[in-house]
Amino acid sequence: MQDILNDIYTTMLSRTDRGQVANYIPQLACVNPEQFAITVALPDGQVFSAGCAETLFSIQSISKVFTLTIALGKLGDAVWSRVGREPSGDPFNSIVQLEHENGKPRNPFINAGAIAVVDAIMMGHQPRETLGEILQFVRFLANDESIGIDEKVAQSELTTGDRNAALAHFMAAYGRMKHPVDQVLGTYFHQCAISMNCLQLAKAGMFLVSDGVNKHTGIRVVSAQRARRINSLMLMCGHYDGSGEFAYRVGLPGKSGVGGGILAVAPGKASIAVWSPGLDSIGNSKLGTEALEMLVQHTGWSIFGH
Amino acid sequence: MQDILNDIYTTMLSRTDRGQVANYIPQLACVNPEQFAITVALPDGQVFSAGCAETLFSIQSISKVFTLTIALGKLGDAVWSRVGREPSGDPFNSIVQLEHENGKPRNPFINAGAIAVVDAIMMGHQPRETLGEILQFVRFLANDESIGIDEKVAQSELTTGDRNAALAHFMAAYGRMKHPVDQVLGTYFHQCAISMNCLQLAKAGMFLVSDGVNKHTGIRVVSAQRARRINSLMLMCGHYDGSGEFAYRVGLPGKSGVGGGILAVAPGKASIAVWSPGLDSIGNSKLGTEALEMLVQHTGWSIFGH
Amino acid sequence: MQDILNDIYTTMLSRTDRGQVANYIPQLACVNPEQFAITVALPDGQVFSAGCAETLFSIQSISKVFTLTIALGKLGDAVWSRVGREPSGDPFNSIVQLEHENGKPRNPFINAGAIAVVDAIMMGHQPRETLGEILQFVRFLANDESIGIDEKVAQSELTTGDRNAALAHFMAAYGRMKHPVDQVLGTYFHQCAISMNCLQLAKAGMFLVSDGVNKHTGIRVVSAQRARRINSLMLMCGHYDGSGEFAYRVGLPGKSGVGGGILAVAPGKASIAVWSPGLDSIGNSKLGTEALEMLVQHTGWSIFGH
Amino acid sequence: MQDILNDIYTTMLSRTDRGQVANYIPQLACVNPEQFAITVALPDGQVFSAGCAETLFSIQSISKVFTLTIALGKLGDAVWSRVGREPSGDPFNSIVQLEHENGKPRNPFINAGAIAVVDAIMMGHQPRETLGEILQFVRFLANDESIGIDEKVAQSELTTGDRNAALAHFMAAYGRMKHPVDQVLGTYFHQCAISMNCLQLAKAGMFLVSDGVNKHTGIRVVSAQRARRINSLMLMCGHYDGSGEFAYRVGLPGKSGVGGGILAVAPGKASIAVWSPGLDSIGNSKLGTEALEMLVQHTGWSIFGH
Repeated sequence: MQDILNDIYTTMLSRTDRGQVANYIPQLACVNPEQFAITVALPDGQVFSAGCAETLFSIQSISKVFTLTIALGKLGDAVWSRVGREPSGDPFNSIVQLEHENGKPRNPFINAGAIAVVDAIMMGHQPRETLGEILQFVRFLANDESIGIDEKVAQSELTTGDRNAALAHFMAAYGRMKHPVDQVLGTYFHQCAISMNCLQLAKAGMFLVSDGVNKHTGIRVVSAQRARRINSLMLMCGHYDGSGEFAYRVGLPGKSGVGGGILAVAPGKASIAVWSPGLDSIGNSKLGTEALEMLVQHTGWSIFGH
Repeated sequence: MQDILNDIYTTMLSRTDRGQVANYIPQLACVNPEQFAITVALPDGQVFSAGCAETLFSIQSISKVFTLTIALGKLGDAVWSRVGREPSGDPFNSIVQLEHENGKPRNPFINAGAIAVVDAIMMGHQPRETLGEILQFVRFLANDESIGIDEKVAQSELTTGDRNAALAHFMAAYGRMKHPVDQVLGTYFHQCAISMNCLQLAKAGMFLVSDGVNKHTGIRVVSAQRARRINSLMLMCGHYDGSGEFAYRVGLPGKSGVGGGILAVAPGKASIAVWSPGLDSIGNSKLGTEALEMLVQHTGWSIFGH
Repeated sequence: MQDILNDIYTTMLSRTDRGQVANYIPQLACVNPEQFAITVALPDGQVFSAGCAETLFSIQSISKVFTLTIALGKLGDAVWSRVGREPSGDPFNSIVQLEHENGKPRNPFINAGAIAVVDAIMMGHQPRETLGEILQFVRFLANDESIGIDEKVAQSELTTGDRNAALAHFMAAYGRMKHPVDQVLGTYFHQCAISMNCLQLAKAGMFLVSDGVNKHTGIRVVSAQRARRINSLMLMCGHYDGSGEFAYRVGLPGKSGVGGGILAVAPGKASIAVWSPGLDSIGNSKLGTEALEMLVQHTGWSIFGH
Repeated sequence: MQDILNDIYTTMLSRTDRGQVANYIPQLACVNPEQFAITVALPDGQVFSAGCAETLFSIQSISKVFTLTIALGKLGDAVWSRVGREPSGDPFNSIVQLEHENGKPRNPFINAGAIAVVDAIMMGHQPRETLGEILQFVRFLANDESIGIDEKVAQSELTTGDRNAALAHFMAAYGRMKHPVDQVLGTYFHQCAISMNCLQLAKAGMFLVSDGVNKHTGIRVVSAQRARRINSLMLMCGHYDGSGEFAYRVGLPGKSGVGGGILAVAPGKASIAVWSPGLDSIGNSKLGTEALEMLVQHTGWSIFGH
């Protein structure tokens, strides 16, 4: 495995077309696009990495997997009255679908859906409390108390968050927000600003590898059925309107973030975190996707074969 | 396995809400909605069935899997210049996406995409020849020379095919049809009118179970990579705007048809055909989906767990 | 003329289907739907009324005519870099068109367009100052210093303004707002809360009757060309996705508000204000439209005949 | 008047940017873009022209005014169960609106609407008979028996009519076509291929100038109300998604065709035909619009002033 990762790392180092670093969040635009890291965590406890696997980055939309898991724990299937579970066929920040479908987001991984999920888990609490709960859950998943929030990124998003504010107010206009829009957005922007490195992120995804049990800690996080369903949502919707492409090329459930990270899950086999800041035109990590494609070619981990 | 299928069959027999038989194709509207069949074909050669597994039904859109496979064999990746590989988020017969995206269908499993695939594989031949080629390929896959076309259904579609004619002419207006629209539609309507039973259909899907090799015949049909990619497309787009729901509930690549059939693939484990004519509001077999959900609960075959 | 108005008034009194009072702004929902008023102001100074023509109502979107006039005065044709001048074919509060056209509203009379116009005329000033300017202009047009703002209505809109907030933030996300969204919205909500009666409103429209000159005061307000262009925009876009219907039935440039008022202009002949709080399904005054239809039938004032 | 037209003609001669001749109908692409003609017909019988006012051109969509008039005569208000009367906000050949609104075209002047109107007036007759009726009506309006159809243009449209075929089949799929699609399209393509010159076209529009009476012949063609309503539809929808622009700049009801012609009506004042083959990006005659703008500036004929 280490050889495979080294090989991937070397290949990625040589790539000249690395995509574009997200520029709509000023703080993200500062990140050096030359960086690359990958970590593979196996159920038997082994962890392999290549590149700067201890460098922190902003997990951004990958956090949506964790908040969805919290929401399912708190509300169960009632979550699905707030968001759907179909691919939208539209970009991550599109508002068209909301107008056509009474303000109900298609799935929990487009921005509107993730904002609705945050609203669902707040349950009358203050942003600080909800945020603390999210952070605590992520630390628990990764078994790492050092995980925190990059306040600069959070502030950076606040000052440029008009698109998300539009989504939130639009849902509010349909009576779909139970808390003040600015509180929900504040929580959402901070959740997206959680900083993790590939080591931490791969560990945090372990519970999705083994039917709900984190084999590193031995703790059951969710039921087997729920773990499978979260994986199905990641596959169907985890890369926005590039989800079909990711399934075609990589063949693993995965969730990307505009910080350049991707968390991918090979059920029964591994939790994989990859990071490279340059994005493709849809907003998914360009080299991250290529690295996962290489990894799956070497390991045969696609869920579409055996 | 036989016990499981018997159990499923008994449960389905007792269902009172069986959905609606497709009524827009007159010939399909005549089918008795009380029927149910399921077949599970294993790589080791064993085949299990329950219900009327030898009753023929119209495979309709399930045929799109076979024509896509032919097209990939003939054109390779050039297929993707004709159709995309993303979920559309729209109903199977929607035309809106075509106007927004220069007449290029989002994927090969919506109607527009399947029509474009037929046009791609015609390559200057007459409808009769192309149709013969499709039929021959399906017979080869199922290892059954008796498979044929229900001419009544084909005629029935011709007389009610205005929606598909609109899709074809619309693509033609963007210069995307290489053959006369009526010839392509004639071929398409006949391809959809192929009649198979669950036994035949499960066998025809075997090549997708074992990375491209039909273990019953020992013949490699496509490469491992291609088999996986076809599976990924079935998962992402095989149930139209109900694909997310199917992935969430069943967790297997599958392709439905408005005749009430579903072909599902459990990679490495089984090819499954199920049939019940009643459809849900999106156009997928209602009991068929429920039966597959039960089967996966009993067997743990979801690709999202291990 | 007085006989005609009396006749219209009597007819409207007998109507039982009066439409629905706007209920999304709580303060407007309290208005008694039984009320009706009409005023016709002629260039020769004569003014005729029937019904409660001195009862104040919330002019709401009719204010958009006045802010557009201000914007054209301040920015000239540069206004058209901020908003278009085509009917949108969508409801007044739709956001779909904005996403398809880079955040530029189709015209100044849909909500998004009117918000963009307010942003355009603020020019660095505070909401209070801009609001003062708008109010001053309306008083000048109507030659009536008593016109004011209904603060209760303005507050009522603030608490329910999520849809408009979504529109404003969405435009801001495209870099199209020069001032803070909450300041623009605050100004916009107050502008909509201007209270006028039919007498005042008819007088305020006089400048559009006589090619830019208010014949009652003798003052030229805008050039002849500009008056005609404002009239053309009122005809094309003044009743949202009911503009075609209004042109067909009434045949006069007009602008409606969800308070139930309509300002209509018969070039060379009269300025007409009508008010009845009940709205049709599109959001235009039901009886107001019917009254104008009767008036035009009696007077032959349609701009489409002679 | 002759001086004004000469002045306009001279100005137009000097224009270098003449737009693009329609290239999607091969036969139209052959027309020399340097040509220009204008005719103004007054109710008192006077007719003024400049340029090649006797050169025939393809009236294309201008024919939709005549078929709508026939349909209103045959069906009365029942026409409005087939088509709406609102601007669509979309291009002339868009299909999106049809899918969103159950296959009912927004208005009779977009292609889908005009096709629906043809279907409405066929009433069981053959294309040849319907076409004869349309041609006879146009000859009657223009008081000129020499008007005919350019068969080459009609054939040219048939071979490139996929977009219109898509619209027709799409409506048929909603049960909105009473006759075979190919018969309706054949009639429609021939109707669009009627050849007229500016002299004939201006005369054919006379009945819309004087409240339904053609003052040149003294014959009442339609009621005053109907003439006004047709004018309102021309203003609102006559230039597709450029109707707002035309109303803003010219201020007259008008109908354009991709052959480069425009018929404009100044109620009570004149019927105007203008022709120049080059089109703007929306599909309306570029110089034709500019010429009308000049004419209205000189004459003050805008319906939005007095």
